Amino acid sequence: ITSKLPNVGTTIFTVMSALAAEHKAINLGQGFPDYPMSAELAGLVDKAMRDGFNQYVHMNGYIPLREALAEKVQYLYGTEVHPDTEITITPGGTYALFTAFATILNPGDEVIVFEPAYDCYIPQIELMGAKAVTMNLLFPEYRIDWNTVRAKVTERTRAIVINTPHNPTGAVLSAADIKELESIVEGTRIVLIADEVYEHLIFDGLPHESVLKYPALRARAFACFSFGKVYNCTGWKLGYCIAPAPLMAEFRKIHQFNAFTCDTPKQVALAEFLKDRSQYLELGKQLQGKRDHFQQLMAGTRFTPLPSHGSYFQIYSYKDISDEPEKDFAIRLTKEAGVATIPVSSFYRAPVDNGVLRFCFSKKEETLAAAVERLRDL
Amino acid sequence: ITSKLPNVGTTIFTVMSALAAEHKAINLGQGFPDYPMSAELAGLVDKAMRDGFNQYVHMNGYIPLREALAEKVQYLYGTEVHPDTEITITPGGTYALFTAFATILNPGDEVIVFEPAYDCYIPQIELMGAKAVTMNLLFPEYRIDWNTVRAKVTERTRAIVINTPHNPTGAVLSAADIKELESIVEGTRIVLIADEVYEHLIFDGLPHESVLKYPALRARAFACFSFGKVYNCTGWKLGYCIAPAPLMAEFRKIHQFNAFTCDTPKQVALAEFLKDRSQYLELGKQLQGKRDHFQQLMAGTRFTPLPSHGSYFQIYSYKDISDEPEKDFAIRLTKEAGVATIPVSSFYRAPVDNGVLRFCFSKKEETLAAAVERLRDL
Ligand SMILES: CSCCC(=O)C(=O)O
Ligand SMILES: CSCCC(=O)C(=O)O
Repeated sequence: ITSKLPNVGTTIFTVMSALAAEHKAINLGQGFPDYPMSAELAGLVDKAMRDGFNQYVHMNGYIPLREALAEKVQYLYGTEVHPDTEITITPGGTYALFTAFATILNPGDEVIVFEPAYDCYIPQIELMGAKAVTMNLLFPEYRIDWNTVRAKVTERTRAIVINTPHNPTGAVLSAADIKELESIVEGTRIVLIADEVYEHLIFDGLPHESVLKYPALRARAFACFSFGKVYNCTGWKLGYCIAPAPLMAEFRKIHQFNAFTCDTPKQVALAEFLKDRSQYLELGKQLQGKRDHFQQLMAGTRFTPLPSHGSYFQIYSYKDISDEPEKDFAIRLTKEAGVATIPVSSFYRAPVDNGVLRFCFSKKEETLAAAVERLRDL
Repeated sequence: ITSKLPNVGTTIFTVMSALAAEHKAINLGQGFPDYPMSAELAGLVDKAMRDGFNQYVHMNGYIPLREALAEKVQYLYGTEVHPDTEITITPGGTYALFTAFATILNPGDEVIVFEPAYDCYIPQIELMGAKAVTMNLLFPEYRIDWNTVRAKVTERTRAIVINTPHNPTGAVLSAADIKELESIVEGTRIVLIADEVYEHLIFDGLPHESVLKYPALRARAFACFSFGKVYNCTGWKLGYCIAPAPLMAEFRKIHQFNAFTCDTPKQVALAEFLKDRSQYLELGKQLQGKRDHFQQLMAGTRFTPLPSHGSYFQIYSYKDISDEPEKDFAIRLTKEAGVATIPVSSFYRAPVDNGVLRFCFSKKEETLAAAVERLRDL
């Protein structure tokens, strides 16, 4: 058997979680909350199962859930999306990205990817026989250098991947970024693959610059979302994709033969849950509380925070503590200090080492306090 | 955008279900039970959620669930499979098949597919740039003509798809079939894609001839299973794949970037549920009761049953009633008699019309009785 992905090994998330377990370290590596999800939402799943919602739902997703999402998009971004032709429920955000790439990419196509990049984009692109054209975000704000983007666009550029709020850095796109992006894609056949799984989880009063807000972008975008990330149930593996009808029609042909359809009781539960807007309107504020609290605690250490405005993550420079490479330092921190993090260098194909680590702060107060306690003496 | 699957339209399952709804017909088309699933199993999911199992589980599946499956395979087929390297939990059986094809197929490869064939195989094969080489099962037993298989095998044959119990016909492979298959694949690089989603649902005292039972087959097979089909919760979209470690290692690289992982609470629940062997040992007997009951009722009509030994389905010839093509007759039966079925011709790329319809009998007694009542006067 010839490997389709010869360079893929175990993910850094699994590696660091295993190391954390081995050394009884506090795990601020992999991105997931360690506090309970909404008991109300879990209860609605139980109700749906007891009400008999255990058989196939509509291939493209439970219709009332798609309607609730369309209503939300209209409310938040002022954009009309059609639940019947433009929204598909998927088994997670990663699957939505995979299926979007599978829909549009052919061998020889190029896709522009900004690094550091979440670890799934490049293998997903390469699996379709296409080429990832990478460029670095500008340290330390991790902003996009739009002139470099302009220089990298060729006749073969089929897509650009954008991710806001950004994993691993927490950077967010601004309205000025959107203007640049609009001017670059105008008149081209470039499709946008928008990873917005941290939608809602945005801080400091900044707006979420969803591609869905901008007609010229929305007309050429697959916007990918995650229920698990925003509703604190990463293990539910449920998400959705929004795209204009002609793109979505092709996406659905792949979806039909990939997972075909998704979990019924959770979709029924979410349709009910989303009727209450506060379920998503309060999320950013709640998580910002954790972010602020974590930053305050960390102020008592020699780690230096870098700008970060969204997601589960805050990155810190450790230049005042050590000049080791990130991966070595992260391993030593796990083994010796008992705190697991993720080295940002692992989000690059050819590692770029700025001496920064990613900390996941979507954790209980006591988890964060205990972790920082261990970092204070460094 | 260029379509990756230009020939794919709406599935016959969706078409017939919609027609059934429109004409208030009883739906014996799409394969799903209309009776409740196990309340115990649903209750275990609720317990898992309340116990806090809502975050990412192991990428390859909840370890105790994989262990329970390995234990089951040992018990049923006398074969040792390694839960850590040879079993992966997937968001459904269709996804397991998709990912298996994605793992092994490259452009130019050929895959032998027997028709009638479940509707996902050929598009999945074609999406990978490979070619489906089809051959017909022998009517009316829908047996494999092994000499034709021998004639179709070439240097480019990368895989053979086998499906037992068979959808749409309910045919099952025999030990003699297995011998033929063994002799054909011996010394070749042919991989078997085994769709065994109706495992356990087998009647008339026949054994399930799983590829897992035969060392020479198991060593080259991706065996794909479904929890939803066997535990009466098709809407849960959870399944698994078993393959020898070197094949599974490559499967997991694709899985990592497709869905990445699956629903946690359901896996925790199933691990507990499967501790009780009667949960799967009784399934065939229970469903055979429905099949026998349905056949008895149908004996009062002019439909003639064809041999069928497993799955949710029983096929009937309507030659004594009409000589219309299957699709026309199925549509008329839905509209005029009020019973929806699936024309078997829709499971062929180039329709073969034997005048047979597929009836799904995994339905409540009153559903079956009401449906047959409507067929009595034809
Ligand atoms: C691929 S593990 C999932 C967690 C995650 O998204 C992250 O830690 O970045
Ligand atoms: C693709 S719909 C699923 C139902 C099914 O498996 C069938 O009816 O054959």
